[in-house]
Amino acid sequence: MFQTFETAGDPTSAPARVAKLREWLASHDLDGFLVPRADEHQGEYVAVRSERLRWLTGFSGSAGVALILKDRAFIFVDGRYQLQVREQVDLGIFAIESLIDNPPAAWIKDNLGKGARLGFDPWLHTVGEVQALKKAAEKNGATLVALDVNPIDEIWADQPEQPMAAVDIHPIEFAGELAKEKLARLAEALSKQGATHCVLTDPSSIAWAFNIRGNDVPHTPLVLGFAILAADGKHLLFIDKRKLPRKVQAYLTQLCDLRAPDALTGDLAKLAKSGAKIALDPALAAEKLRAIIEENGGTVVSEADPARLPRATKNQAELQGARAAHRRDGAAVAKLLCWLDAQKPGTMDEIKLVTQLEEARRTVGEETQMPLRDVSFDTISGAGPNGAIMHYRVSKATNRKLGDGELFLLDSGAQYQDGTTDITRTVAIGQSTDEMRERFTLVLKGMIGISTLRFPVGTRGSEIDAVARMALWKHGLDYAHGTGHGVGSYLAVHEGPQRISRTGTEKFLEGMILSNEPGYYKEGHYGIRIENLILVTAAKPVEGGDLPVHEFETLTLAPIDRRLVRPDLLAHEELVWLNAYHARVLAEIGPMVDGETLKWLEQATAPIS
Amino acid sequence: MFQTFETAGDPTSAPARVAKLREWLASHDLDGFLVPRADEHQGEYVAVRSERLRWLTGFSGSAGVALILKDRAFIFVDGRYQLQVREQVDLGIFAIESLIDNPPAAWIKDNLGKGARLGFDPWLHTVGEVQALKKAAEKNGATLVALDVNPIDEIWADQPEQPMAAVDIHPIEFAGELAKEKLARLAEALSKQGATHCVLTDPSSIAWAFNIRGNDVPHTPLVLGFAILAADGKHLLFIDKRKLPRKVQAYLTQLCDLRAPDALTGDLAKLAKSGAKIALDPALAAEKLRAIIEENGGTVVSEADPARLPRATKNQAELQGARAAHRRDGAAVAKLLCWLDAQKPGTMDEIKLVTQLEEARRTVGEETQMPLRDVSFDTISGAGPNGAIMHYRVSKATNRKLGDGELFLLDSGAQYQDGTTDITRTVAIGQSTDEMRERFTLVLKGMIGISTLRFPVGTRGSEIDAVARMALWKHGLDYAHGTGHGVGSYLAVHEGPQRISRTGTEKFLEGMILSNEPGYYKEGHYGIRIENLILVTAAKPVEGGDLPVHEFETLTLAPIDRRLVRPDLLAHEELVWLNAYHARVLAEIGPMVDGETLKWLEQATAPIS
Repeated sequence: MFQTFETAGDPTSAPARVAKLREWLASHDLDGFLVPRADEHQGEYVAVRSERLRWLTGFSGSAGVALILKDRAFIFVDGRYQLQVREQVDLGIFAIESLIDNPPAAWIKDNLGKGARLGFDPWLHTVGEVQALKKAAEKNGATLVALDVNPIDEIWADQPEQPMAAVDIHPIEFAGELAKEKLARLAEALSKQGATHCVLTDPSSIAWAFNIRGNDVPHTPLVLGFAILAADGKHLLFIDKRKLPRKVQAYLTQLCDLRAPDALTGDLAKLAKSGAKIALDPALAAEKLRAIIEENGGTVVSEADPARLPRATKNQAELQGARAAHRRDGAAVAKLLCWLDAQKPGTMDEIKLVTQLEEARRTVGEETQMPLRDVSFDTISGAGPNGAIMHYRVSKATNRKLGDGELFLLDSGAQYQDGTTDITRTVAIGQSTDEMRERFTLVLKGMIGISTLRFPVGTRGSEIDAVARMALWKHGLDYAHGTGHGVGSYLAVHEGPQRISRTGTEKFLEGMILSNEPGYYKEGHYGIRIENLILVTAAKPVEGGDLPVHEFETLTLAPIDRRLVRPDLLAHEELVWLNAYHARVLAEIGPMVDGETLKWLEQATAPIS
Repeated sequence: MFQTFETAGDPTSAPARVAKLREWLASHDLDGFLVPRADEHQGEYVAVRSERLRWLTGFSGSAGVALILKDRAFIFVDGRYQLQVREQVDLGIFAIESLIDNPPAAWIKDNLGKGARLGFDPWLHTVGEVQALKKAAEKNGATLVALDVNPIDEIWADQPEQPMAAVDIHPIEFAGELAKEKLARLAEALSKQGATHCVLTDPSSIAWAFNIRGNDVPHTPLVLGFAILAADGKHLLFIDKRKLPRKVQAYLTQLCDLRAPDALTGDLAKLAKSGAKIALDPALAAEKLRAIIEENGGTVVSEADPARLPRATKNQAELQGARAAHRRDGAAVAKLLCWLDAQKPGTMDEIKLVTQLEEARRTVGEETQMPLRDVSFDTISGAGPNGAIMHYRVSKATNRKLGDGELFLLDSGAQYQDGTTDITRTVAIGQSTDEMRERFTLVLKGMIGISTLRFPVGTRGSEIDAVARMALWKHGLDYAHGTGHGVGSYLAVHEGPQRISRTGTEKFLEGMILSNEPGYYKEGHYGIRIENLILVTAAKPVEGGDLPVHEFETLTLAPIDRRLVRPDLLAHEELVWLNAYHARVLAEIGPMVDGETLKWLEQATAPIS
């Protein structure tokens, strides 16, 4: 299994650990310390040794920060985690604050007193964050102190080592472009920005640029490391050599100088001293990097990670891979759903569904000679009220039967070498209510609205988010998350910069993959989400039209539960889309499944009139 | 007539005037000077004496700026005016630049050389603008020089005087809130911002706050002047007393100290010296005000104009007025359209339509004892290809017959004491083509999409703009303007901050009035626009829904040309909306029109099946 069902975090260890941290702070003349969830790379998935926030507080969410003061402590989390954090942390120690409405900088500005010294680890906060924190602290005369060591690392006796997973070359048939060519493109981009170098801090960018994949963090094939790219082509890659099989080492040596991780600060300082102009992404790069550059006389050029747009706009090989991965994944999901429909309501539980789905993915992967490499995130398997918890992770403690008359929400994804998938289906267990069917259909209308949209070149995600919500809005309903996130190519399942949400300021470009996942959640009762991945297609003029437009090609191929659709609520074109989609699912997935599943698939994709 | 049909600007005077300006600049050791279209108040409509850009260049558009250098000159205009500017300015003198893609600050940054001294009038540029210009100039070592006099005023021999139109009290039955109460609200808002004072620079805000109206600029009942509001209630109003009838003077004296306009700088300096914290809106306030405050030791508090949200959210009296104004205006438009339908194609011209419409508004205004005070902007009356010019203003030179088989676009508005209107109708002259009818229907679908939308409290204009475009996008079509702007209450027809467009970042609030005006323009052929004003209604939960939502109430009441509607392209609910709207138009406007128009109205609003 690629995931476990243990309870993720618990509050019992916190009192002793926080006490120990406070001792350390006192002995170093500090009044407080910030413990973010982030690691040096600011990714969503981090190595176990970097789970400092979880170790200290018990909180296991994917975003958050703790502020430990002498006599008080706070944990800041966003709306997704307001319930979870209360179960995972010791409320006698931690007060809960909102990461969005009252983030650490706001709290510090309003509360930190004159003369207070607040420590932070400059490797774990971005340049932009530290600017805001510093400004906040200085307002009342407090000081932000960059520490040379992380106190958690000092007191965490059995802290795991850095991960040492072996690195693989990502083959050209899946990557579609030689690393040499990618690096040349990036070097050219640097020159245009007026920079001599840039530091790649996002392991996704490194994996993409060098065509390598690893296994240092769960569910995303990242190799933790840094790179310094040079406009003159003399690139440096900082990766522990123990991770590099000889073949990989030979490959990488042709592209760059391989350097030990602890050479990074020295090499960067040397470049800075020689007058280099070094680009950093203020939203991604650690404050420490800025400090090293500026303290050594270099110039920081503030520019977005040059790899993010090239990485986001997939090439033909990556798209071909994505399509194949989605057929494979659709066959596995069909197997699972067919199996589930054959079970008696009330006999299955959430964990069983997760294991069964992983099994189906393994089987189809083996049959198609493209084995399942990992799941792309911990499967969200929520029956009844658990489906209404947006970031639910099933554990043995919360595991629930799929009860008769309930909805079951299954949000999962896979990592194959040719692509990353992410799919959500909500299915009826037994007979569902009129309300459930009405709301399912409203969510479906939003999902079809995005699927069938055409939009001019230059349109941004923020402009079309409402298209997925209009039908729900009309009934006084909505969902408290964005409509879609970017997805990588055998990389992170959450990948920027493109997204469909209020905050999606990036223009859509050909080749971007996004999720399309409106939902509806009735707290304490049920959750609905329908998610397909979609691809921004080449801009072309429509016959009779004036301007080039993009469309979305749907990648995900699996039946949408017809029993939950109320055809009377669908417009004619919406019904046409649904029937055509199901016909395509049958045509593409049918040949990949056996008799039992095929029979089920034929029924599950039959046209609705 | 409230508008003329003379050619607005012509290029013939420019050579002599530009030469004279250059002489003046040379004798003052300046290398250049900026001539914006803006006046001291940054409004869209300015007094004739402030039309410096037009006087110098011939360009009569509502936005733009000229940059006059020793041996070169540029005029920067936005996309709306790219055609017009080429007809109005001497291309031997002026190079045309894009105000959006290459604004003056960008040009200056790239081109202005070391040591160059560029003059500007600090009354005519906002604080924010000057910051950007200064930064751009200093990049290559040029200097931005704030001038004490405006050189145009020095060389413009017959420059008109400041307008001296008499000021009226805006009666409480239309204003709905006493000025005393409004000023108390604003004073409280100032305290909350940590300011002791604010300068109101927008005459719309002054008119709203003091419940006064004037006639200093065309089409908007503004009183040009400034106000300094004080948190302690000691407000100062700077208006020339010659504009104030005795009754008005007595009224205003109860609310504030009346000061002469030229006392403003001295009073502001005095406040600054006493340590006042003075709020300025960086997007509205003249740089000169900032300079006076800071040079005299005061503190500038950077805050949006405190009157803009209270002014934008209309109260019950204003809404009742708006509804009455729209019934009256709808009756006038119905009269005009009935009359037009009775004419033979090819016999009418654009100017005749404008005069006839104004006549209809005057007549209905007199009949209802609420006379037409002004038109709210120069009527856009465009036949055939002229309809495709988004900001077309008909002149004797461009006047065109309404030809058989053409579309005719009529965008107009009125100022009544109880409200401001703005309506666009596009009508078929004779038989129209299938393409015209298809595109008209696509525009109508977008307009209905906005009209029938529900949306959660907190939604912004940028989120719903696409709803008006989706149907056009599907056919590869779009329009190059926003979907809607805010509208004042017997004030400016373009009023912020609310709008429906990519740049609409303000949340919708109950009582805001907006236009809803999607369009389609086929250059050289025809233009289509359908515009109603709509009102954001009180947030209420929908039955069965979870969250409070807003809806739009449609204010504008006039038939939409049924001959241009293709029912086969409308969804069922869209047709239901159109028929219900027409039934309402008949019910509310019918009783206000006579036999002939009523008969026409019954046909024009008959249900489509």
